[in-house]
Amino acid sequence: MTTPIETPLPPNVFSTSCPTRRVLDSVADKWSLLVFLALKDRELRFNELRRRLESISQKVLTQTLRKMEQDGFISRAVFPTVPVTVEYKLTPLGLSLLDVIENLREWAEAHAPELNPRRTPAQ
Amino acid sequence: MTTPIETPLPPNVFSTSCPTRRVLDSVADKWSLLVFLALKDRELRFNELRRRLESISQKVLTQTLRKMEQDGFISRAVFPTVPVTVEYKLTPLGLSLLDVIENLREWAEAHAPELNPRRTPAQ
Repeated sequence: MTTPIETPLPPNVFSTSCPTRRVLDSVADKWSLLVFLALKDRELRFNELRRRLESISQKVLTQTLRKMEQDGFISRAVFPTVPVTVEYKLTPLGLSLLDVIENLREWAEAHAPELNPRRTPAQ
Repeated sequence: MTTPIETPLPPNVFSTSCPTRRVLDSVADKWSLLVFLALKDRELRFNELRRRLESISQKVLTQTLRKMEQDGFISRAVFPTVPVTVEYKLTPLGLSLLDVIENLREWAEAHAPELNPRRTPAQ
């Protein structure tokens, strides 16, 4: 007797029930993308990240880092200094996504001048 | 006499004054990414897009399409039917970005199972 073979549904990024859609939801955030790029070369402390990502607030950076840590893209190391030092770095999962995000940065550098220069204020 | 040569600043995606940062701001939106992917093969009407992008509201789809049209990623064709038919398709600029977004979809399909399965509700 054989057990029936489960045939998984093919991935469908458009479907709310597909895990791939959750990945897009998670990554498609400008602050997350900038954290990926900032951590490309080495680990950074919270305040280093905050200075690097121009105009991000402390609250939004905290939320962004927490979400990325929960997803498994970054890890956090705490050092018992006074005050305490917290360093963030990309995990192997985060590093595997970095290449794709680098491609997006390269596209932006190549094509930014082609975007229509003016836009009505955000809706 | 020679005129001084302007040396442009190198692109810096972290700087709010750099056009490349604006590209990230513009593209890093899950609905925009899904519109890119939905329009990969052919033009679609508004209601076709709405059905394709599960759980998007009419209002958010309208805003997303308007923003993408203003940026120059999609174009809109209006046909004088009753009711009027509106079709959206990627412009050459949008098509040039599609490859990068396809890579992100492929990454999502390959790595979705590795993301931590549970996350506390969105902050």
